[in-house]
Amino acid sequence: MQQLASLSLEDAQRVIQAGIEKAEEVGQPQNVAVVDVGGNLVAHARMDGAWIGSVDIAINKAFTSRAFDISTQDLSDNAQPGEQFYGIQVSNHGRVMSFAGGLPLTQDDAIVGAVGVSGGTGEQDQAVVEAAAAAF
Amino acid sequence: MQQLASLSLEDAQRVIQAGIEKAEEVGQPQNVAVVDVGGNLVAHARMDGAWIGSVDIAINKAFTSRAFDISTQDLSDNAQPGEQFYGIQVSNHGRVMSFAGGLPLTQDDAIVGAVGVSGGTGEQDQAVVEAAAAAF
Amino acid sequence: MQQLASLSLEDAQRVIQAGIEKAEEVGQPQNVAVVDVGGNLVAHARMDGAWIGSVDIAINKAFTSRAFDISTQDLSDNAQPGEQFYGIQVSNHGRVMSFAGGLPLTQDDAIVGAVGVSGGTGEQDQAVVEAAAAAF
Amino acid sequence: MQQLASLSLEDAQRVIQAGIEKAEEVGQPQNVAVVDVGGNLVAHARMDGAWIGSVDIAINKAFTSRAFDISTQDLSDNAQPGEQFYGIQVSNHGRVMSFAGGLPLTQDDAIVGAVGVSGGTGEQDQAVVEAAAAAF
Repeated sequence: MQQLASLSLEDAQRVIQAGIEKAEEVGQPQNVAVVDVGGNLVAHARMDGAWIGSVDIAINKAFTSRAFDISTQDLSDNAQPGEQFYGIQVSNHGRVMSFAGGLPLTQDDAIVGAVGVSGGTGEQDQAVVEAAAAAF
Repeated sequence: MQQLASLSLEDAQRVIQAGIEKAEEVGQPQNVAVVDVGGNLVAHARMDGAWIGSVDIAINKAFTSRAFDISTQDLSDNAQPGEQFYGIQVSNHGRVMSFAGGLPLTQDDAIVGAVGVSGGTGEQDQAVVEAAAAAF
Repeated sequence: MQQLASLSLEDAQRVIQAGIEKAEEVGQPQNVAVVDVGGNLVAHARMDGAWIGSVDIAINKAFTSRAFDISTQDLSDNAQPGEQFYGIQVSNHGRVMSFAGGLPLTQDDAIVGAVGVSGGTGEQDQAVVEAAAAAF
Repeated sequence: MQQLASLSLEDAQRVIQAGIEKAEEVGQPQNVAVVDVGGNLVAHARMDGAWIGSVDIAINKAFTSRAFDISTQDLSDNAQPGEQFYGIQVSNHGRVMSFAGGLPLTQDDAIVGAVGVSGGTGEQDQAVVEAAAAAF
């Protein structure tokens, strides 16, 4: 038996709210999603006017960050042609997102969930996901 | 040209919050999801302890209600063996949910989104989705 | 934050071994699979001569039992035409198995994983999964 | 008519156990999976703490190695932009893994199955899969 700490809905909603506030500051509407320690969705919000194609991406950036305990930006570096995880994108039924915007959420050195942001440029997504994660 | 009224993130979050409060009263943790006029996810919340298999179902009950402008309970009656929509479940890549827990959300006689609930018995899901829709 | 107990690989291997021994006694080769508290696969074994189509089914019976905290036999009763979960089979991207052979695994009243068996008749699968779960 | 030699569950479990021991030595928890001559899963184990996104990858590295009778590291060289199998990753419904960690298993010059490892760096996965295959 093992004991796994996992974030709560209240944690997820606080993280999402922080992401929304950052997105408003940045001026780009976003999708923000949070998964738990098992990689399962806890909460999601799409701001008014945010891309509908980004619903899936935000949820799966969060999934990816927890699935491999890595930021999706770091995964991106490793998934380029010639790199060690090249081609990982087609695994897990299209759920692996290999570009910026996903971050693991950690407590006491254990990863307890992850957050994903999609709806803007890579730079905007990264700025928003960092603000969201900081609220955890 | 047409004008489509669609619910906002603020509307969706109010609907979800009402669903959560009803679920707490009922004593069964739930997933609650809201889609907009385009059938695309606006927001989702999974209460602590709610079934992980119900993430997909809550989102797709909301999708189904908007996709066919019908409560999923009414769709269920029409999707039984021998009935007029029997087999509709396999359409739309597995997104059509043919059991209670999804309701369209209406303003000025126009459907502007939908809400889906999953995590309990059909009766519990229906009670929660009705409370959620009533908050719209 | 929440604390989730989850079974270990050692637990999963013990459960699978017990399933294999029961299947040998029954005289029907089987697939046996175990998932953790997050519904993610921990271990799987296909006995020599067992059906290859049952790999997916055993894994997803285990998933289903954890996803809805229910035995797949009980889910079956509720997924029949006219029943409260009719049509649930198409949700979760074809991972919901609505027939006998999946059981949640419980410790101290908390579900910490699940086991799925596929490879024989419903009766055989159920006998094997019960023996497997009893070893937990 | 043809006779196909194929590894047994006992073989698969021995290979997996050797992989686990190497992974413990390397200090990185891993997923290890074995498929038979038909490319179908025989057994899988995820060590405690190993990445959940690597379940699918380990199984499919094994599938890929048997599907093309090649190590996935060698396939990787051929799947890079400009190379002869560039784009092969999208075939087979996302099951082709084009990075290190999968090896065919051979007896009397015939390939009788394959093993896949996922959960660490490419170098770690390759070290573990080589140890696993050596136990065959």
